[in-house]
Amino acid sequence: MSTRIEVRDADDPRLADFRDLKRADRRPDRPGGRGLVIAEGTVVVRRLLASTYPVRALIGVARRFEELADDLADVDVPYYVVDAELMAQVIGFHLNRGVLATADRVAHPPAADLLAGARSVAVLEGVGDHENLGSIFRNAAGLGIGAVLLADGCADPLYRRSVRVSMGTVLHVPFAPLPWLDEGVDLLRRNGFQLIALTPAGECRLADTRVSGRVALLVGSEGPGLTDAAMAAADLRVRIPMHRGIDSLNVATAAAIAFAALTDPDPD
Amino acid sequence: MSTRIEVRDADDPRLADFRDLKRADRRPDRPGGRGLVIAEGTVVVRRLLASTYPVRALIGVARRFEELADDLADVDVPYYVVDAELMAQVIGFHLNRGVLATADRVAHPPAADLLAGARSVAVLEGVGDHENLGSIFRNAAGLGIGAVLLADGCADPLYRRSVRVSMGTVLHVPFAPLPWLDEGVDLLRRNGFQLIALTPAGECRLADTRVSGRVALLVGSEGPGLTDAAMAAADLRVRIPMHRGIDSLNVATAAAIAFAALTDPDPD
Repeated sequence: MSTRIEVRDADDPRLADFRDLKRADRRPDRPGGRGLVIAEGTVVVRRLLASTYPVRALIGVARRFEELADDLADVDVPYYVVDAELMAQVIGFHLNRGVLATADRVAHPPAADLLAGARSVAVLEGVGDHENLGSIFRNAAGLGIGAVLLADGCADPLYRRSVRVSMGTVLHVPFAPLPWLDEGVDLLRRNGFQLIALTPAGECRLADTRVSGRVALLVGSEGPGLTDAAMAAADLRVRIPMHRGIDSLNVATAAAIAFAALTDPDPD
Repeated sequence: MSTRIEVRDADDPRLADFRDLKRADRRPDRPGGRGLVIAEGTVVVRRLLASTYPVRALIGVARRFEELADDLADVDVPYYVVDAELMAQVIGFHLNRGVLATADRVAHPPAADLLAGARSVAVLEGVGDHENLGSIFRNAAGLGIGAVLLADGCADPLYRRSVRVSMGTVLHVPFAPLPWLDEGVDLLRRNGFQLIALTPAGECRLADTRVSGRVALLVGSEGPGLTDAAMAAADLRVRIPMHRGIDSLNVATAAAIAFAALTDPDPD
């Protein structure tokens, strides 16, 4: 059972977690960063409460906590009820969604552990944009991808914007850094994964691609795409046929198309 | 050849198109609306200049016009060179992209004309969110969908945010309103289109769906989805298998997965 606390003073020290929110989610080695996980809005807060992340506290307007009553009954956290003006004053901007929660980060499981239990994984290289990263997690969650592995150059999936764009799915889809390139590739192969690179330069059309067994889909950044080394390391390079003259799809959309074509979240 | 005009006075009457920009793209029947088509940023402005929309004028900083020099050489429009501060003063906010263009709307071709030339079309019902609408156009363009037909309840594809999110593809993918429901359905059938509804309640898995001939993909809004009437009118209702417990995908992503699976932009 969680503890309801009404707060009317913006300087109340119990609200420390929520101050300067635009920087609080940065890693502790960055200016102002405290490495907090921040969930915004009812849907994402609900996913946080149901996750393995240790929730620290919530702040929000009364109406949002009514929506979350069942979720809060199952946990033991303080939640601070404020009015919208006080909330904006504390966090530093107006949050339409009316509720947010903080949690501590947890240690990543090693990539090897995630591979052991997954039928399909996404391997991201150079996905540095927080929104694209969040969208990839949302699509991976919906399409039943077992884990997301972060090779070189990826942004932080627990950054506030990633969490929000992912609809909180980043708090449930397992992820871990992947040593890149040779060590990670060896690890994938030892676990029986076929490495499929998604690239406009692929020699095989997605519709003609047949895979069997475990699939690791390699996805690069929206601009430069996968590195030559990653392309060379893949067993197969696959392209989504594109209409002439149009830029490639958004990277998260392209990944979703490939996930849907190559994997099956619901084999019945 | 376009005409370069340097402007240093924010009150210059030649900049009238660019004032109160947040409202200028509304339809003329809305407050402040002038129904202008507004393209922001080099990529989108370039697509506007290459489109059939009659461009009225451009405003931007010198550096952006250097990038657009070749594109401007082929048309005959005035472009107003300003500094970033003056630009912000005129349009009412700071535009990072540094250049924008206005154009007039053009009359829609009738839906029947678009159907005659298309192998595959998207039929949107109740897609009221400008970003989702823009994303659907981007995906339709990339995946070679011949036209987008707007059934009841759709937002305006030429609203500024739709144009931007579509990466300007909304200026090239033909679209038209579709009388809904019976008249539009009859029109689709008379043109030989098979009507495929995309819905989580579909009786057929996307991967098991075989289509032949022309395809009309029916897509509903992200929340309520397609109406019962639209579902009943379809020849087939198709679902993307979803991992348990996760909300459906973003509507534009789901549409992209279906476009990619059911159509082929590059039959060689």
